[in-house]
Amino acid sequence: MKRSNRLIVLTQFFLENPHTHTQLPYFVDLCGTTKSSISEDLDIIHDVFEQQGLGMLHRTTGAGGGVRYIPKNADAYDESFILELCEKLKDPERILPGGYLYMSDLLGDPKTVREIGRIFASRFSEIELDAIVTVATKGIPLAYAVASFLQVPVVIARRDPKVTEGSSVSINYVSGSSRRIQTMVLPKRSLKEGSNVCIIDDFMKAGGTITGITNLLAEFDAEVKAIGVFAEADDEDEERKVTNYTSLIKISEVDTKGNQMEIVPGNFK
Amino acid sequence: MKRSNRLIVLTQFFLENPHTHTQLPYFVDLCGTTKSSISEDLDIIHDVFEQQGLGMLHRTTGAGGGVRYIPKNADAYDESFILELCEKLKDPERILPGGYLYMSDLLGDPKTVREIGRIFASRFSEIELDAIVTVATKGIPLAYAVASFLQVPVVIARRDPKVTEGSSVSINYVSGSSRRIQTMVLPKRSLKEGSNVCIIDDFMKAGGTITGITNLLAEFDAEVKAIGVFAEADDEDEERKVTNYTSLIKISEVDTKGNQMEIVPGNFK
Repeated sequence: MKRSNRLIVLTQFFLENPHTHTQLPYFVDLCGTTKSSISEDLDIIHDVFEQQGLGMLHRTTGAGGGVRYIPKNADAYDESFILELCEKLKDPERILPGGYLYMSDLLGDPKTVREIGRIFASRFSEIELDAIVTVATKGIPLAYAVASFLQVPVVIARRDPKVTEGSSVSINYVSGSSRRIQTMVLPKRSLKEGSNVCIIDDFMKAGGTITGITNLLAEFDAEVKAIGVFAEADDEDEERKVTNYTSLIKISEVDTKGNQMEIVPGNFK
Repeated sequence: MKRSNRLIVLTQFFLENPHTHTQLPYFVDLCGTTKSSISEDLDIIHDVFEQQGLGMLHRTTGAGGGVRYIPKNADAYDESFILELCEKLKDPERILPGGYLYMSDLLGDPKTVREIGRIFASRFSEIELDAIVTVATKGIPLAYAVASFLQVPVVIARRDPKVTEGSSVSINYVSGSSRRIQTMVLPKRSLKEGSNVCIIDDFMKAGGTITGITNLLAEFDAEVKAIGVFAEADDEDEERKVTNYTSLIKISEVDTKGNQMEIVPGNFK
């Protein structure tokens, strides 16, 4: 395989297999070339990825050494992407009765969801994780987007147990927004004891749901290493139960009737 | 930018922007080179993508002409991927009380989900679609995976209306498996009248849910152009309500107590 062809094949491999340690002999076989040619190819790809703000190839030498692609966005890119999202969300037509903000179209766009996933994955790329945990249903697409860049499985907590998931552990918790007692379940098989996890959700107000997941995860002796929420609502009446989290946007009600909203970048920077 | 760098940048662009028509001047600017060099680069990428079973670059000439990456897996690749999945699902430890099959670990793996999405997107690549429709919750990751390869939005039907999605249209339908009357809702804002849609779901038995979505979509004058289900259950007692669909795997109970299952590739070939 010629260099030009190899660069295409290797670029595709890394983009589809982020955070995956691969030894050089694999590429030598794949491309039918020498180790030194592959090594030069990797240098070229690493440089272009860095220039383009796509991340880097991390190489290790010695026995068992190899290469791993670490997606990491340029900060400027993330900021402009989030500012653009804020602009779209400011459209007054998005305000629903009750002062809610309609976001389903943006969170239904696979490209937007993938970019959001890439931003969280960039932020959490140095944490060793065993799973991304979310709660059904709106956090699910975001959780998969993050997971696809970090190459870890997604585990979904639900409101009701499903017969197709076997026995499960459940907890009750008080939802911050509705102040009602809610149930959350996690199938026993879904998570190994003592896992390191990252919680991803679409929205956080007082943090009741995140606290609920955290308590449920404690039943699995899991350690919450990171929390990412797409949007946080600024609510001065309520004390936030969760403090250590990354948010991409922040929504505040400007008037008490919810007819106007302020939407700004979150604490991700 | 040198050819080697351009090939990396362009490969990344196409993989992240499938089914997106892009005019050549965009690449001329992006890479700071001539139209004829870009044209040669595209030929190289097209050939490598075809050789590797990744799809093709479709080029159009004349005013407004450009290029579009169409992901299309090699058939042999899809078949071996599905056979491997069937093998994993045959593990007797997966059989749950009631004769259900535990699949959440496989559908929680972002790489597996992405491959499933790529297979459906390959199959449906020539259909003009406006949206992928699924019903919460297990079909959601699959729907986003398909949508990310076809670059169309995802629309999610739910069991209950959500206050964050505004007014919605609802229908009642009889679920095939439980024979109970169930409700399904779709927010009014989520789908334009007269859209061409593809329905994606994780599982189909008699087809009650798919029929339910189809009836709900009729309220939006939407036309169902394709149906993809990850797993279909073979149930001889029941007549299937849905006939024109693509399934990746087929599950049959071998004994009546559900202690043994036969798992084979579906009708996707």
